[in-house]
Amino acid sequence: MNRKLRMGMVGGGRGAFIGSTHRMAAQMDGLIELVCGAFSSDPKRSKLSGKDFFLPANRVYGSYKEMFEKENQLPEGDRMDFVSIVTPNHLHYPVAMAALDAGFHVVCDKPMTMTVKEAKDLEKKVKQTKKLFCLTHNYTGYPMIKEARDMVKSGQIGKIRKVVAEYPQGWLAANIEKDGNKQAGWRTDPKQAGSTCCMGDIGSHAENLAEYVTGLQIEELCAELTTFVPGRQLEDDGNVLVRFNNGARGIIWASQIATGEENQLNIRVYGEKGSLEWHQEEPNSLIVRWLDKPKEIRRTGVGIGKISAGATRLPAGHPEGYLEAFAVLYKNFANALAALLDGKKVEESSCDYPQVSDGVRGMQFLEAVVRSNKAKQKWVKM
Amino acid sequence: MNRKLRMGMVGGGRGAFIGSTHRMAAQMDGLIELVCGAFSSDPKRSKLSGKDFFLPANRVYGSYKEMFEKENQLPEGDRMDFVSIVTPNHLHYPVAMAALDAGFHVVCDKPMTMTVKEAKDLEKKVKQTKKLFCLTHNYTGYPMIKEARDMVKSGQIGKIRKVVAEYPQGWLAANIEKDGNKQAGWRTDPKQAGSTCCMGDIGSHAENLAEYVTGLQIEELCAELTTFVPGRQLEDDGNVLVRFNNGARGIIWASQIATGEENQLNIRVYGEKGSLEWHQEEPNSLIVRWLDKPKEIRRTGVGIGKISAGATRLPAGHPEGYLEAFAVLYKNFANALAALLDGKKVEESSCDYPQVSDGVRGMQFLEAVVRSNKAKQKWVKM
Amino acid sequence: MNRKLRMGMVGGGRGAFIGSTHRMAAQMDGLIELVCGAFSSDPKRSKLSGKDFFLPANRVYGSYKEMFEKENQLPEGDRMDFVSIVTPNHLHYPVAMAALDAGFHVVCDKPMTMTVKEAKDLEKKVKQTKKLFCLTHNYTGYPMIKEARDMVKSGQIGKIRKVVAEYPQGWLAANIEKDGNKQAGWRTDPKQAGSTCCMGDIGSHAENLAEYVTGLQIEELCAELTTFVPGRQLEDDGNVLVRFNNGARGIIWASQIATGEENQLNIRVYGEKGSLEWHQEEPNSLIVRWLDKPKEIRRTGVGIGKISAGATRLPAGHPEGYLEAFAVLYKNFANALAALLDGKKVEESSCDYPQVSDGVRGMQFLEAVVRSNKAKQKWVKM
Amino acid sequence: MNRKLRMGMVGGGRGAFIGSTHRMAAQMDGLIELVCGAFSSDPKRSKLSGKDFFLPANRVYGSYKEMFEKENQLPEGDRMDFVSIVTPNHLHYPVAMAALDAGFHVVCDKPMTMTVKEAKDLEKKVKQTKKLFCLTHNYTGYPMIKEARDMVKSGQIGKIRKVVAEYPQGWLAANIEKDGNKQAGWRTDPKQAGSTCCMGDIGSHAENLAEYVTGLQIEELCAELTTFVPGRQLEDDGNVLVRFNNGARGIIWASQIATGEENQLNIRVYGEKGSLEWHQEEPNSLIVRWLDKPKEIRRTGVGIGKISAGATRLPAGHPEGYLEAFAVLYKNFANALAALLDGKKVEESSCDYPQVSDGVRGMQFLEAVVRSNKAKQKWVKM
Repeated sequence: MNRKLRMGMVGGGRGAFIGSTHRMAAQMDGLIELVCGAFSSDPKRSKLSGKDFFLPANRVYGSYKEMFEKENQLPEGDRMDFVSIVTPNHLHYPVAMAALDAGFHVVCDKPMTMTVKEAKDLEKKVKQTKKLFCLTHNYTGYPMIKEARDMVKSGQIGKIRKVVAEYPQGWLAANIEKDGNKQAGWRTDPKQAGSTCCMGDIGSHAENLAEYVTGLQIEELCAELTTFVPGRQLEDDGNVLVRFNNGARGIIWASQIATGEENQLNIRVYGEKGSLEWHQEEPNSLIVRWLDKPKEIRRTGVGIGKISAGATRLPAGHPEGYLEAFAVLYKNFANALAALLDGKKVEESSCDYPQVSDGVRGMQFLEAVVRSNKAKQKWVKM
Repeated sequence: MNRKLRMGMVGGGRGAFIGSTHRMAAQMDGLIELVCGAFSSDPKRSKLSGKDFFLPANRVYGSYKEMFEKENQLPEGDRMDFVSIVTPNHLHYPVAMAALDAGFHVVCDKPMTMTVKEAKDLEKKVKQTKKLFCLTHNYTGYPMIKEARDMVKSGQIGKIRKVVAEYPQGWLAANIEKDGNKQAGWRTDPKQAGSTCCMGDIGSHAENLAEYVTGLQIEELCAELTTFVPGRQLEDDGNVLVRFNNGARGIIWASQIATGEENQLNIRVYGEKGSLEWHQEEPNSLIVRWLDKPKEIRRTGVGIGKISAGATRLPAGHPEGYLEAFAVLYKNFANALAALLDGKKVEESSCDYPQVSDGVRGMQFLEAVVRSNKAKQKWVKM
Repeated sequence: MNRKLRMGMVGGGRGAFIGSTHRMAAQMDGLIELVCGAFSSDPKRSKLSGKDFFLPANRVYGSYKEMFEKENQLPEGDRMDFVSIVTPNHLHYPVAMAALDAGFHVVCDKPMTMTVKEAKDLEKKVKQTKKLFCLTHNYTGYPMIKEARDMVKSGQIGKIRKVVAEYPQGWLAANIEKDGNKQAGWRTDPKQAGSTCCMGDIGSHAENLAEYVTGLQIEELCAELTTFVPGRQLEDDGNVLVRFNNGARGIIWASQIATGEENQLNIRVYGEKGSLEWHQEEPNSLIVRWLDKPKEIRRTGVGIGKISAGATRLPAGHPEGYLEAFAVLYKNFANALAALLDGKKVEESSCDYPQVSDGVRGMQFLEAVVRSNKAKQKWVKM
Repeated sequence: MNRKLRMGMVGGGRGAFIGSTHRMAAQMDGLIELVCGAFSSDPKRSKLSGKDFFLPANRVYGSYKEMFEKENQLPEGDRMDFVSIVTPNHLHYPVAMAALDAGFHVVCDKPMTMTVKEAKDLEKKVKQTKKLFCLTHNYTGYPMIKEARDMVKSGQIGKIRKVVAEYPQGWLAANIEKDGNKQAGWRTDPKQAGSTCCMGDIGSHAENLAEYVTGLQIEELCAELTTFVPGRQLEDDGNVLVRFNNGARGIIWASQIATGEENQLNIRVYGEKGSLEWHQEEPNSLIVRWLDKPKEIRRTGVGIGKISAGATRLPAGHPEGYLEAFAVLYKNFANALAALLDGKKVEESSCDYPQVSDGVRGMQFLEAVVRSNKAKQKWVKM
């Protein structure tokens, strides 16, 4: 590839947290440039946002439909290569379907869709169109998560017996959606967020992380969802017992009423020979425990693993954070896309970003959690 | 009291971990002296142990029955005041009943009995005999646990919504009972340990800690017990969802196959206004999070609470550990007993040690966990 | 400003750590684009590097002199606005002087020059040309460092009494320059690095951080420099006692033979009412101790300070790292430069990046350290 | 030995911190009992203290002289075996000399004496009388400190290059001696404390720890002492550059005005192959860094070293603290004394407690620090 890849964006205008995150992550490695966008359902707001990003006025659109149509009329040398979808949940599916139909590759925020049915539709569409699709389960981009996955895969910690994945946050401990907090507003609104709040927004990250690190699949689960804040329509806390396909047992829980917690995603994986522990708020350390050796702290930049090294940009001790991990997804996606556009073989390492199939599993997990919560019997199949 | 209190001991001879712990804890504050013992079911081993502790030969007995009988024949000025029971689980009940019947006060290791029925019997006996009874749920002796309880009680963190209590250990990750490890042997033997291994041995500490800190009671639970190590007769891992009597939700889990974990008991309590986090392996810190203030680290020796200060022996920064916390139970018990023997009013602060009623709740918890594990429906009452 | 600022780069071609750091930092916030460069003293290597960054061939130059000349011949609408100098130390001075003379604003890596004389020359030149000059003492870009500075400034911790700033690294514990390590090679070569290795490379960061956070100035110092690795020409370890202009005492030490240490820059500031502690390897926490209140952990994204909030890009709990802090310097510089080019008033907050005067102080510190090391008397004036 | 050893105590009556510490430490392992004491220079206070400890009235003395005389008149079967000296500094020397002259073995708090001359006198006396003498540099009793010493000794971290030992406290940040704080009173009074406050009280611990762990000796030093609190007579802060006898360089600093610090003694030792880091406030972890392997956390109870295991009482994860470490000194001293009294060979491991020679070095260090502080030249010999 002798040029940067061209990205369009749907959603993510002024004031949207996740939009600016995607832009910084996409542009960090100098492989991607933002060329156009439909940044808001309000065309005026979209225009103003485009100005913030120094885009020419004619590349800032009033709607995603307009964007896909007009971009397709541009010569290939100008036209965007892929679209990044950073809208509230309920728009992920229609925008992604439309983008794929219009011939664009897709990066999409999570949860992927509102239902399992939509997820499977989208999976089918990706297969038909042969376009690349990246779901931004961004936490899998951390080098030490890749190191953990690598250690499990190569058998270093032995057969896995137990997994605990937690995601406590405290920002919804009070009814801030009532006071007009926009981020809280759409996440607690069933029409925009779907059938879950806490589990869809953050529990799905914990589930994805557990399956990514262990390479196992959840088969059965037993869940309880609770809404603690009066007047809230969706759950703000969820506890789930899980069974994996190798017989391992686990706990996945998430909470948005864990007062004072910031963004405490963490995972512990216990194997027959060793165990792993990782905390998102101190992401450059991976705690490794052994049956009969001292505890080790493996660190970003000194990891032995080739894969984790490939996700690292700086020498040891220069902390890499959330944006860098997010950018690893974009980098891998960009490398895969560049190879595809150049007609070259896509390296396996470039495909190390969450796929549409991860999105299907995520929706199946959420659907099973909701079903189990209502059920009287202990276990439901996922 | 113008003398030290006189303690006899049942169990805890040479090589027993918990026996030496009880002796060090009992004697730390200079209020109690060991005067006699039946240290082993093997009379010869009992004699040798007595020598280790510099006891006169005539105060070292071949059985607890002999001890209770002979001590009662001694003049009041020599006779032991109370007995400390540190045998394997199945003997707690008969020895405690016999001691109370013989007129001795009792300190007893946990779990208190083998069944709920025994626990209630014992509770009745304590009431009838009006003797003092202390169950050594030792983790409640830590100053920062008392600080946490105090903060909850005084409403500082608001109404409690969620509690997570964990107790991971890794020492039973392999089948060491097969290789003759004595500590592992009796704990995994249903005849000596009862119907559970992991939950009775350590899960019950997590349950007790959760109720002690929050002042709440578990009402319903949903459990899964698993035996991971082939050939083992009792469970070595347990996950329990719980519901408290104020509507709070929780998770209690314990494991003895959490490879590489030492003794990682910890608890997190989330309230409407703040939250608390405590780890047994770093016991002198209590992490306090708030809705809208920076996170605080409260520390042993600088806590404001009168109760936690009363459980502290050293200036701030001089770490107190497991033995000191254990000794707080003995100190409070000794102060209560001294007051009783002196015919004085027992201070409320001296009664701050686990009572026979805690033992009843512990057995009810274990019984409910076993019942729920076998049940198909999600929730069982405790 | 209705466009991105245009950056040229001197040095930082393929394989250079600090070059890619500057590029990622400069481009993170979408305010700056790389438009040209003289990336290596080897013109062929420069060309290849330019290709990596997708630059047109005619904007990749064989030398910085050629770059300044040719860029000046371009129309104003295309020409670079400023140059980023990321060469080995000995070239900082001549390149910066030439850039200023040619009318370009400058971002320059540290240490600024090889001597105090050069530093003062450069300071004079900056004043004469009225160009902006930013020295990348990047650690001052961390939000919690700005929070610390703000707390000191507003008197929250009282008059400062003691400051300890450390910078241990272990990567030069063995003679890796002998084995061809390029990074080690020029840093240990007096011709390229100047009269110090460890103190110039990292000790100067500790000094700068101490003065930035406290607002104080070092007046006197007493130093010892040591070369531990046989065959090395410059020191790899330095310990310095310092006296500040308000009477405070301090220790500044740096080491590159602190085996196993990664990049452990840290600072502790003790005031009459409180104290501050910060570690670069966990940069999102600022530990605050008080005379009579519990220890606090202030965190990026929940800090109260307006200044630290302005240096933050993500919600609390989403860790920001080394690149983000580095990018804060570029962002502030870009905002100042944009205002200047637009003929607007430069906001005070935009000037919060290290100035040429910081570079003069840094050189004075290094010169005094070397002088003190050779002296027999205890204290030398800085 | 078929009985407990009999301890007398000088000082340490009601309200004295260090007295109760010594008693708890001495009695923890069941090898020593307190039989008599001269607990205060005020005979009435001494009597009351004796009652607190349940001592018979005739074994509580009005002065140490009386105690030594009267105890010597008791039959050997009752008489105390050794005396524990826990008075303010200025009395250590006369009491210890008198005890040795009277034929008693000695445990003595630090700093050992007021001057180097006294220290050498005492050393001579110990040799002449052939009595055992233990100086309670208690921090050397921690298992992970013994593990560290063992790792250095066996060459695991290679030749030592740099040592940093710190001891920050904050309790003297304000002039609390003025308000009648007794602990602060005598420590800041030259008549009772000697020529230093901060360095004698805590700096000497840092010095002792550095020499104990490394097995090296300080040869030269360069010091600055500062009194920050107005009206205080002795220094409350000290910074010292040191040179060891193998060429290693180091920093030893202590402060009692480090606001908010509790008892933060810590040490870092950097060798050619690895490095060690230990913090007294989290004493059960030893951080080990390597040239080319992940960082390890060695832990009390899982250490491989025989020596550290011998200083451990509990299984891994059951935190041992300050009192347990202090008790290791008493245990080793008791074992050595028991062997001596039994006419047996004293095991080398039993001699692992600080000797009178450590006290001489401590006084030499303090004397050199004071001398260097006043000197204009940089380095003075120790």
